[in-house]
Amino acid sequence: MDLVRYLADKVDIINDALAERLVKEGEFPESLHKAMHYSLFAGGKRLRPVLALAACEAVGGGFEAALDAACALECIHTYSLIHDDLPALDNDSLRRGRPTSHIVFGEAVAIMAGDALLTVAFDIMGRAQGADAARVLKALSEIASAAGSTGMIGGQVVDIESEGHSVDFPILEYIHIHKTGKLILASVRSGAIMAGANDAQLACMTRFGEAAGLAFQIADDILDVEGSSEDLGKATGGDAKKGKATYPALIGIVESRRRAAELVERAVEALDGFGERAEPLRAIARYVVSRKK
Amino acid sequence: MDLVRYLADKVDIINDALAERLVKEGEFPESLHKAMHYSLFAGGKRLRPVLALAACEAVGGGFEAALDAACALECIHTYSLIHDDLPALDNDSLRRGRPTSHIVFGEAVAIMAGDALLTVAFDIMGRAQGADAARVLKALSEIASAAGSTGMIGGQVVDIESEGHSVDFPILEYIHIHKTGKLILASVRSGAIMAGANDAQLACMTRFGEAAGLAFQIADDILDVEGSSEDLGKATGGDAKKGKATYPALIGIVESRRRAAELVERAVEALDGFGERAEPLRAIARYVVSRKK
Repeated sequence: MDLVRYLADKVDIINDALAERLVKEGEFPESLHKAMHYSLFAGGKRLRPVLALAACEAVGGGFEAALDAACALECIHTYSLIHDDLPALDNDSLRRGRPTSHIVFGEAVAIMAGDALLTVAFDIMGRAQGADAARVLKALSEIASAAGSTGMIGGQVVDIESEGHSVDFPILEYIHIHKTGKLILASVRSGAIMAGANDAQLACMTRFGEAAGLAFQIADDILDVEGSSEDLGKATGGDAKKGKATYPALIGIVESRRRAAELVERAVEALDGFGERAEPLRAIARYVVSRKK
Repeated sequence: MDLVRYLADKVDIINDALAERLVKEGEFPESLHKAMHYSLFAGGKRLRPVLALAACEAVGGGFEAALDAACALECIHTYSLIHDDLPALDNDSLRRGRPTSHIVFGEAVAIMAGDALLTVAFDIMGRAQGADAARVLKALSEIASAAGSTGMIGGQVVDIESEGHSVDFPILEYIHIHKTGKLILASVRSGAIMAGANDAQLACMTRFGEAAGLAFQIADDILDVEGSSEDLGKATGGDAKKGKATYPALIGIVESRRRAAELVERAVEALDGFGERAEPLRAIARYVVSRKK
């Protein structure tokens, strides 16, 4: 299959859907809505929403059924980047090739733009048109739990608190599984839920999402060491400078690469029963470890 | 009716429900869960959740139907206080008689504890047990929209951006209606929705909630001028010091008090058709302007 074409099509669809569901940039208060749009339309890969649409298709649904969940996932991912970049957290000034939100809008508006993106994620799901309400609630619960204190935020807290300390492997895995993995898993599962997946299908999606999510984060760690700042649109080598726990730092580049490849194989195998419809999901998993940015 | 007794009973019920629905304080990551509990169980008035339960009862539902919405509202209110107190926003070091979250846990954890409380609010609604899913989604949408960029966060942004500038009456009203009013309105409406309120009943609840919400904020402004720091558990006179727009500053204390009283009467009148079951809601509206903290 033509993954590049698939991704480009889906990214367009997601961008249009986000633009439709968000308050317009010029609306009052302007600084807030400008800041929300600035980060949300900064050219992100849209990996999470694409995964949601692809998982929905893999189970046999039309991707439209997962569009609200997809938009919610991207709003949550974007808010987490804005807050992560704040001076009190990672203190990053560059993201996706542009100055970070607090550099452009000041800390107060950046904090509140993040809050507003997190809030609008659930607003979008609450307004989900024409969908089965029980399905929407189930997907929403999946996403909220993955984004919360025992999911993504838990991972962020441990990541921040581990900076500059020596970190053992269980803690490194906790950070990666929670900070990135949980929301990727929720992307796949919520997309499948919106297609009406049964328990057996959801179990396969869980195996796929867990493996692909961890592979993605290991690949991210490797890119921070080996990627070019130009490709990534942010400073590289930042993890090492901050004393961050990473796979390459703990088990070396070669072993990191081996493990990422192994996880991708595991992810692809989990979809054995899904046939042709799951080809985009499989291709995305493979792409995740081969990407340059 | 015995409002003191009613409030005490409902506050106990709400505190138990919150404790049941939240991740325990000792869970990993500990700093995060400690910070969430620290602010959530700091002895707040629980005005928003009480309003949700009282509105549910006024429409003829058992209050239990609105418990999840009530917990969500209090989590959202608490997160907004944590973020509002941050150095980049109001820079307050005292709240409810105790050091604010960032003073105790540091800015990073305070920001993330706020994020986690906002997230868990929707998680709680997503997990709402045994309720009609369409009703839950409608209430959730009401709450998310009220808490978002054209609701509470919009009001916070304008409030922060107006500091030290001369503010005219329309802007002052915008701030008050959005920063406090919208979530109070959503408390009343979501409680009524969970009881299955029809459109006519919801329209009355809207009139009640709008009037009571604005009265509450005017009373808050007056307390900041006249109340004692001991009663309020925070520094008073802070609004004036920060050059904040307030009703007393713009229209004087006497006119502010007159307007608050008028709004309470309007709120009570909106409930004319509801009979005995709405007595708690009416009593809460009256209490809102007579309270000392």
